[in-house]
Amino acid sequence: MLTRQALNPNLLAAQYAVRGPIVIRAQQLEDQGKKIIYCNIGNPQALKQKPLSYLRQVLSLLEFPELLNDSSVTSRYPEDLVKRAREILKFHPHGTGAYTQSAGIPFIRQAVADFIRERDGIPADRDHIILTDGASKGAQSVLLALLRGASDGFMIPVPQYPLYSATLALYGGKQIGYFLDEENRWQLSKQILTDSYDKARREGTNPVGIVVINPGNPTGAVLTAENIQMVIEFAGSRRLAIIADEVYQENVYGEGLSFISFAKMMHEMHERDVSLFSLHSVSKGFLGECGHRGGYLEIRNVPPDVLAEFVKQQTISLCANVDGQLATYLMVAPPEPEDESYPTFVAERDAILGSLKAKAALLGEAVNRIPGMRLEIPQGAMYAFVRFELPPDRKVDVATFSPAEQRAHEEKRDTEYCLALLEETGICVVPGSGFGQKPGTFHFRTTFLPPLEEIEDFVVKLRQFHEHYTRELAEA
Amino acid sequence: MLTRQALNPNLLAAQYAVRGPIVIRAQQLEDQGKKIIYCNIGNPQALKQKPLSYLRQVLSLLEFPELLNDSSVTSRYPEDLVKRAREILKFHPHGTGAYTQSAGIPFIRQAVADFIRERDGIPADRDHIILTDGASKGAQSVLLALLRGASDGFMIPVPQYPLYSATLALYGGKQIGYFLDEENRWQLSKQILTDSYDKARREGTNPVGIVVINPGNPTGAVLTAENIQMVIEFAGSRRLAIIADEVYQENVYGEGLSFISFAKMMHEMHERDVSLFSLHSVSKGFLGECGHRGGYLEIRNVPPDVLAEFVKQQTISLCANVDGQLATYLMVAPPEPEDESYPTFVAERDAILGSLKAKAALLGEAVNRIPGMRLEIPQGAMYAFVRFELPPDRKVDVATFSPAEQRAHEEKRDTEYCLALLEETGICVVPGSGFGQKPGTFHFRTTFLPPLEEIEDFVVKLRQFHEHYTRELAEA
Repeated sequence: MLTRQALNPNLLAAQYAVRGPIVIRAQQLEDQGKKIIYCNIGNPQALKQKPLSYLRQVLSLLEFPELLNDSSVTSRYPEDLVKRAREILKFHPHGTGAYTQSAGIPFIRQAVADFIRERDGIPADRDHIILTDGASKGAQSVLLALLRGASDGFMIPVPQYPLYSATLALYGGKQIGYFLDEENRWQLSKQILTDSYDKARREGTNPVGIVVINPGNPTGAVLTAENIQMVIEFAGSRRLAIIADEVYQENVYGEGLSFISFAKMMHEMHERDVSLFSLHSVSKGFLGECGHRGGYLEIRNVPPDVLAEFVKQQTISLCANVDGQLATYLMVAPPEPEDESYPTFVAERDAILGSLKAKAALLGEAVNRIPGMRLEIPQGAMYAFVRFELPPDRKVDVATFSPAEQRAHEEKRDTEYCLALLEETGICVVPGSGFGQKPGTFHFRTTFLPPLEEIEDFVVKLRQFHEHYTRELAEA
Repeated sequence: MLTRQALNPNLLAAQYAVRGPIVIRAQQLEDQGKKIIYCNIGNPQALKQKPLSYLRQVLSLLEFPELLNDSSVTSRYPEDLVKRAREILKFHPHGTGAYTQSAGIPFIRQAVADFIRERDGIPADRDHIILTDGASKGAQSVLLALLRGASDGFMIPVPQYPLYSATLALYGGKQIGYFLDEENRWQLSKQILTDSYDKARREGTNPVGIVVINPGNPTGAVLTAENIQMVIEFAGSRRLAIIADEVYQENVYGEGLSFISFAKMMHEMHERDVSLFSLHSVSKGFLGECGHRGGYLEIRNVPPDVLAEFVKQQTISLCANVDGQLATYLMVAPPEPEDESYPTFVAERDAILGSLKAKAALLGEAVNRIPGMRLEIPQGAMYAFVRFELPPDRKVDVATFSPAEQRAHEEKRDTEYCLALLEETGICVVPGSGFGQKPGTFHFRTTFLPPLEEIEDFVVKLRQFHEHYTRELAEA
C-alpha cells in the first residue's frame, strides 16, 4: 500500500493556508452546530452576495436552449439577453457540452481582446489569450512552463496569495520572497526587490520571473503608476518575465485611485522585451462567480513558438470548462446602456461595489481602534491584512533562535491565535504566516465579504477576544 | 524576451496527438471553407449528439434559481426535476457561483459513493472521492503525486490515450510502455507486462504504478474478469499502484460483455494492499458532456495521511467547477422509473447507446472489407484503432535504422498518411504513432461518433483514398 513517504516530496512540502488546518477545524465546528463566520476565503456567494442576474439568465438559456423556443419562457427574460443567448449559439453552436478549442472559444477570446483594448486603449490580439479554469490554472501553467529546473525560482511578494508558494513547491521551483512595504501602503520597493534578487543569485537560485498581485492579496493595496513602472524596469534589467495577477482590477475603493494594468504601462513605456502574463478571473470583481472557474491568461512579448507551447500545454487537459468560458465572455461584454437588462445590471453592480467599499472602511476604522491592532485601510481587493501585537513569549529565548526557528515559532504563535479566535468566536481567518510576514510581526488575513451586520459583530468579538487573549498570555 | 529554449524542457517534450498538428491543419482548412469530419476526438456534442434533457433542465434551473419561483416556467419542466433542483439548493444553498469544499460538494460525493456501491455491490466511502474537472485532472493529480523523481515511471499501455504520456513528460516521469495484444482483442498479457517491467528495472527506471484504460482508448477493447484479476495480481506482486481509467464504463457494445470495475474485482479478491485510483467522467458514456468538465477520482487502499495529501493537492486550485460537479451528480443519480422525466431519459439514453453500437459495427465491418485494412470491431468506448498496410518505403533502408530512427520514420509515414487523408477527403483522424504502436505496424484512431450517414460517407472516402494513396506510394 502507498505510504506518505512514497509520495512526491514536492507535494508533501506544498502548503495552502487559505484552506489549511484552521478551515478544516471550522468545518468540524460547523458540523457540531457552531455558527462560523467564514472570513478565510474570497468566496462572495458563500457569504450571501447574490449573482448578477444577466449572467445567470444567459447561462440558464444556454444550458437548456430549448427554452429559447418557448415564448412564454423567453417573455420573462430581458429581450437583449434572449438575443444574446441566440447569438452565442450562432457563434458557438456546440453549446455548453462540447470540448472547445484548447485556448478557448474563438469569439470569446476576441471579446476579451476587445475588452483589453477598450480598457487600456492598447492593441490586443485574441491569439494571445487563453481561457482558463479560473486564474489559478493560468498562473500554474505559467509557473510550470518557465521553471527549467530545481534552481529556477520566481520572485513572489511577502505577504502573498499562497497559490504561488504552493504551486512553486509543487513544481519544485524556488520561492524568492520580496517584502511588500507595510509602512508605505504595501507598495513594492526597488531596494527590496534588488536585495532580494541579489540574495537569491548569491545563494545559487536563478530568478526567471516576478509575480505581482495588483490590487493586492492579502494587502488590499493598489499600486501606483510609478510603482508599476519601477517593476517593469526592474524586470527588464534582470530579464525576468512578469506575472501580473490582476483579478481584483474591478475592486478599487480608495479615493482618487484607479487600476492600471501592466499591459497598459508597458505599452506606454514602449517596452517590447519583457514577457508579460496577465491574469483575470470571473471569481472576484463584482461578479464573484468563483464556482464557475472562469478566467483568462493574456500573453505579451513572446515569440510565436513560445506562444505555441502555452497553447500546447492547454491541449493536455483539453480545454477550460465551457460555462466558465461563457461567464468570462459575459464579464468582458456586459449589458450596454441601450439594453433592457442594463438598469438591473448597473444597480446590482453598484450595490455590490458600494457595499464592499463601505465594509472595507468600517472594518478598517474599527480594527484600528482596537489597542494592539493596526491596519492599512484596504484600497482594493477583498481582504484586510491586520497586524496585531502579542506579548513576548517568556517560555522561550527568541534571541537564541535561528531564522528558521524564529519563523516556525512565530507561525506556531499566530496559528494558535487564529485557532483560539475560531474556537471562541466562530470567526475563521487565516494566520499571517500562511501568506508570509516580516520576522517579529504578526498578522491575520480577513475578507470583508460578510454582510455589514456580521462585520460589525466581527469587530466587537475580535476586540473582546484580543484583549482577553493577550492579557492571558501576558499573565501566563 | 522569453525564448523557446528558456522554457521547461518537459513542456517542450510533451506531445498530445489528439489535438496536434493534424487538428490545427483541419481548423485551417475549415476556416477556408472545407467540410471537415472531425473523427479525431471523443467530443460527441460537437458531432450532433444531443445532450440529455434531464441534466440540462436541472442545470438551467440551478443557474438561475429565480425560475423556480415562476410557476409558468416550472410548469414546463418535469415535476421531479423541479423538485430535484430545489433539493440540490437545499443541500447546497450557495449554488453554482461559490467555491465548494476542495474535494467537492459533500452530498455529491455521497451520491458517487452510493453509485459505486450499487454498481458493484461493494462498500464505498464519500471521503475517498474527489470531484475533478473531468477525469484528466484526476489522472494528472495521481501522476504528479506518485512521481518522486526523474527515475520514477508509470507503466502505460501501447497504444494509449496520450493524456498519460503527455502528463508524464510534463511532470518529468518515465513512460514504461507495455504493448496491448492486438492479436488477442487488445487484452493485457502477463508476459508482456513482466517483460516491460523487468526491462524498465534493468534500465534504472523505478515503476511506481500502472495505468489501465477499460474499456480501452484507442482500442475499444473491454477487459475480461480474468485479465483484470491478472493485472491486480501483477500490481500486487510488484508493489505498483493502479490507475483505472474507467471513463467508458457505460460504452460496452460487444455481445455478452460487461464492464467490470477494478474496485469490484479487488473487493472480490480480498485485495487490501494495492492502492487503486479509479477515474470516471461526464464526458463519455451516453452523456457526452465534455464541455462541463466533470468527473471524479475514487481512491482505495491508502492510509489516511496519503488521502489527506490528495485532498490538499486539490486545495491549491480551490475546487472543480460547480456545474461539472452538478453534472457528475446527475450522472450518478439519473431519473428513477417513477419520475415524470424517466421515459424521456430512457429514450434518449437508449437512442445514443444504440446508435453508437450500430456505428461501431458498421464502421468495423466496412473497414475490414477494405484491402490492406484491418480492425478489431470495437466492443466498447468510442474509438476504432484501424490497422493499415503501407508499401515499403524504398527511398530508405529500414534495416540500417536504430529503433529510435525506425520509430521516427514510421511516425513520419503515418502522419503523412493522415495529413493526406485530411487534405483529400476532409476526414480528420489521429496517426497511430500518437498513441504508440508496435514497430512495423501502422494505425490511425477514429471515433465512430459522427452521424450514421457521415460514417457511411467516411468509409467510401477512406477506401478510395487508401487505394489511391498506397498505389501511388508503390509506384513512386
